[in-house]
Amino acid sequence: MDIKKYLHEKKEAVDSFFHNYFKEQRRPAVLQEAMLYSLFAGGKRIRPILAIASFEACGGNPDEIVPYASTLELIHTYSLIHDDLPSMDNDDLRRGKPTNHKVYGEAIAILAGDALLTEAFSIFSDTSFCRTIKQADLLKALREIANASGPRGMVAGQVQDILSENSVPDKDILQFIHMHKTAALICASVKIGHILAGSSKDNLGAIISYGNNIGLAFQVIDDILDIEGDTEELGKPVGSDERIKKTTYPLLHGIEKSREIARQLVSDAVSSLSIFSAEADPLREIAFYLLNRRN
Amino acid sequence: MDIKKYLHEKKEAVDSFFHNYFKEQRRPAVLQEAMLYSLFAGGKRIRPILAIASFEACGGNPDEIVPYASTLELIHTYSLIHDDLPSMDNDDLRRGKPTNHKVYGEAIAILAGDALLTEAFSIFSDTSFCRTIKQADLLKALREIANASGPRGMVAGQVQDILSENSVPDKDILQFIHMHKTAALICASVKIGHILAGSSKDNLGAIISYGNNIGLAFQVIDDILDIEGDTEELGKPVGSDERIKKTTYPLLHGIEKSREIARQLVSDAVSSLSIFSAEADPLREIAFYLLNRRN
Repeated sequence: MDIKKYLHEKKEAVDSFFHNYFKEQRRPAVLQEAMLYSLFAGGKRIRPILAIASFEACGGNPDEIVPYASTLELIHTYSLIHDDLPSMDNDDLRRGKPTNHKVYGEAIAILAGDALLTEAFSIFSDTSFCRTIKQADLLKALREIANASGPRGMVAGQVQDILSENSVPDKDILQFIHMHKTAALICASVKIGHILAGSSKDNLGAIISYGNNIGLAFQVIDDILDIEGDTEELGKPVGSDERIKKTTYPLLHGIEKSREIARQLVSDAVSSLSIFSAEADPLREIAFYLLNRRN
Repeated sequence: MDIKKYLHEKKEAVDSFFHNYFKEQRRPAVLQEAMLYSLFAGGKRIRPILAIASFEACGGNPDEIVPYASTLELIHTYSLIHDDLPSMDNDDLRRGKPTNHKVYGEAIAILAGDALLTEAFSIFSDTSFCRTIKQADLLKALREIANASGPRGMVAGQVQDILSENSVPDKDILQFIHMHKTAALICASVKIGHILAGSSKDNLGAIISYGNNIGLAFQVIDDILDIEGDTEELGKPVGSDERIKKTTYPLLHGIEKSREIARQLVSDAVSSLSIFSAEADPLREIAFYLLNRRN
């Protein structure tokens, strides 16, 4: 299969949903502008695409999940806006563009993040997009996303990340941060594909194992790219994590060993999918694509 | 009926749910501590109580709605934490205690707010609390709350509030701010009581009219108290809104006229309930209680 074509098509589907959903101008204009500024700042829509690919692998018709899958990008975008704030990572650039608070100021940036997070749940609870998806499954999937994003998931990881700045690198804490800050929402992405497809419980273990491995791999690769990549390609100052002494995989294990860990995680992710046939090829190809990405 | 007893009992039910729900210590400890610091900083649980009272008026058994009604307090608390931030209202005190960022720092305060908001949706999508409540109604009520809190509701009001600081007071803008920042979530509180009780559409108009009137009255009274009350009773520096030249009802209409507006709104709210008998007495009494509150 042509994974680049697949990624492009699914990204287009997600973006087209957003364009349609946000086409109506709402008051106050600056709020919607700030939300859309970060939403269209170059995100690859990896989380929605993972949800779509998992939904397909579990027998769903990809069109139906697009609105629900797209909410993962709203949540991801909110987390980036808040992470970049002066009181957190204090980043001026994100994907080569000024961060939200650099353009709109801190107050509007915080509120644009709040709005994106809340809007995700508004869309996810909109049953007008459902045809074959059951309302009970929608509720179950929504809870999966809330748990992965909240104080049991992403927010816990971000708090631990902040607490660990400038402290002695620790393996367990690094694992906790990555599993919560990054892997939880990525794993939830493939899980909601499974839930919304109404798929059998027999597949669930495979999907979760794929999600956890790919989620952790994603962050390890991010850490490596942060050290290796050049600013132009990555869109943020290289080594910015090292500058404020964040614990990362390369800092703890060195670059070569980190690369090996990432390769092993991707290999484990793909192995988890052995009970699926060709319908899971997009999931497999996405795993390799993430391993080889340059930004 | 004894409204003080009623308010006390319902507040106890909400607090007891929180104590039980948050009894398990989660990592990182400081996140949970920051969340609970503001959650137990003296809130009167008005929004949950309104949801419970509306649920009762529409024939529901109050015990069942407590977990879902409680999420309104999580959302309200998150909004206070973010409103108090240095980049927003920059308040040092809230209900007589140091604000969240004064105790935990800005980063943790922002994340504690994010966590409370997200946890609200996690609880609201937990069907294990349902006995007679239908999952379809749960989804519908959740969407009501998301719409009232997000960029179509509370967040829009807060953005407009910030944009309007130090500008010429304007009646329409003031109405927009109050309807979105305060009334939307209060109106949603009574609406979800109606939805979760599976009540007939015939009652809905009455409940919405009550909610909008009481929601706006609540903010007008807040504006009056902010000017009149003394710091000790109110727990925040008196006139803090005037200090930074926020548009308020008293600024626009004077105190006497504002009091009259509040009285009229409460009277309209109570009149809306004429199709209900004694089962709506708590809603009626809450309206008068809010009008006469001193803090």
